[in-house]
Amino acid sequence: MRISTAGFLTLLAGVALTHAAAAQPLRTPLPNGAKFPIALAVEVPAGDSTVYLSGIGADPLPNAPHEYGDTETQTRSALTKIGATLQGLGLSYSDVVAVHVYLAGDKAKGGKLDFTGLQAAWTQFFGTKTQPDLPARSAFQVAALANPGWLVEIEVIAARPPKTQ
Amino acid sequence: MRISTAGFLTLLAGVALTHAAAAQPLRTPLPNGAKFPIALAVEVPAGDSTVYLSGIGADPLPNAPHEYGDTETQTRSALTKIGATLQGLGLSYSDVVAVHVYLAGDKAKGGKLDFTGLQAAWTQFFGTKTQPDLPARSAFQVAALANPGWLVEIEVIAARPPKTQ
Amino acid sequence: MRISTAGFLTLLAGVALTHAAAAQPLRTPLPNGAKFPIALAVEVPAGDSTVYLSGIGADPLPNAPHEYGDTETQTRSALTKIGATLQGLGLSYSDVVAVHVYLAGDKAKGGKLDFTGLQAAWTQFFGTKTQPDLPARSAFQVAALANPGWLVEIEVIAARPPKTQ
Repeated sequence: MRISTAGFLTLLAGVALTHAAAAQPLRTPLPNGAKFPIALAVEVPAGDSTVYLSGIGADPLPNAPHEYGDTETQTRSALTKIGATLQGLGLSYSDVVAVHVYLAGDKAKGGKLDFTGLQAAWTQFFGTKTQPDLPARSAFQVAALANPGWLVEIEVIAARPPKTQ
Repeated sequence: MRISTAGFLTLLAGVALTHAAAAQPLRTPLPNGAKFPIALAVEVPAGDSTVYLSGIGADPLPNAPHEYGDTETQTRSALTKIGATLQGLGLSYSDVVAVHVYLAGDKAKGGKLDFTGLQAAWTQFFGTKTQPDLPARSAFQVAALANPGWLVEIEVIAARPPKTQ
Repeated sequence: MRISTAGFLTLLAGVALTHAAAAQPLRTPLPNGAKFPIALAVEVPAGDSTVYLSGIGADPLPNAPHEYGDTETQTRSALTKIGATLQGLGLSYSDVVAVHVYLAGDKAKGGKLDFTGLQAAWTQFFGTKTQPDLPARSAFQVAALANPGWLVEIEVIAARPPKTQ
């Protein structure tokens, strides 16, 4: 038997389509033109691999091994560590597709979560001119984090597109 | 060289199998015939794309911009908004494979989570005669949600099967 | 038209590469040689299917239908149930790629989470000589679990590699 030209091209087209569809996660913005820097939804194409990171909190402050700073400081530290982790895997903030933000109540804020502090740091990493890609995100206050000095722990899922050839 | 009939059919069979296997998420029911409307496990075939939604809470009540109602009312509102989001993406409740339900304590319930209210609304969307497909789910009470008026925030992951040809 | 030998081998090589790449999740250890038994990151190849399990808590103690034991006992029970669930799906602890551990405060520990108890049981299932594969994990204390007797609820995501032929 010989494979017909049409048959083979159909097969190749199928492969090509799969690769083309896998190129970029599809990010749906929040409705009504909301400026809040998260996506309503992010679709990861079937061709991508999925990278799960453990929850990551801040490093201690310099010269203060048991102090971690306020929520903004800790969020910046945690996201910087996440960026380094992603970089070590050949990925970047642009590849982040879903995020969980676990906040602890801040005694300096009456035991409440510091959402303003979270956002002040978050917006330096997501939704910037040079890094406009927004992940889906849920953020809420937990009863306590595993490290009692932490005010925030951040957990991300990233997607790695297939190698183009 | 010519490709043998057997070789080519094997190749095609591999492609066909992948597509067949990718058709539907495989949902494992809870053990012992439990009627509780969540799945014990849901397996998403490799050929599906993954859709992550941000956590979604209720809309304010009509004519009450800062009131959201009880847990049942809020769950219904949040799931309705999730349904509209899915619809906008060409998906439906049947495509939901995993859900996180984050509940806040209800002052009207002594600060406890209102599981009965959650389920009263949940069962209108999942495990019905017209929508029997159940996702895996975890539901628990958090210390606080980002919107202090919310009693529930719901986050879903959906799967999109590959286009059949 | 005939497909050239080179063309066909290229096509087959592409398929083979995909399968080879899909063989095993890639687990990145914690930095600085940390012995803590979770992975910093786990990458699931595109060819794997994804299995979402609902959050699972302990079974009641024998002869005590409303008692569940301490955090260590409950963690062991929950992870044993998760193992049985995975086994029923033809999977094992080695296939777990991401875990959420939701802890409730233990009155016997002053209302705090019992991290030591969690780890005492966890390390019997993950990072052992016979089961060295570590998932990404986040663990934190919630305000309350759905079952008021539970001190821990565990939710896992597993990955199923494609069948080798």
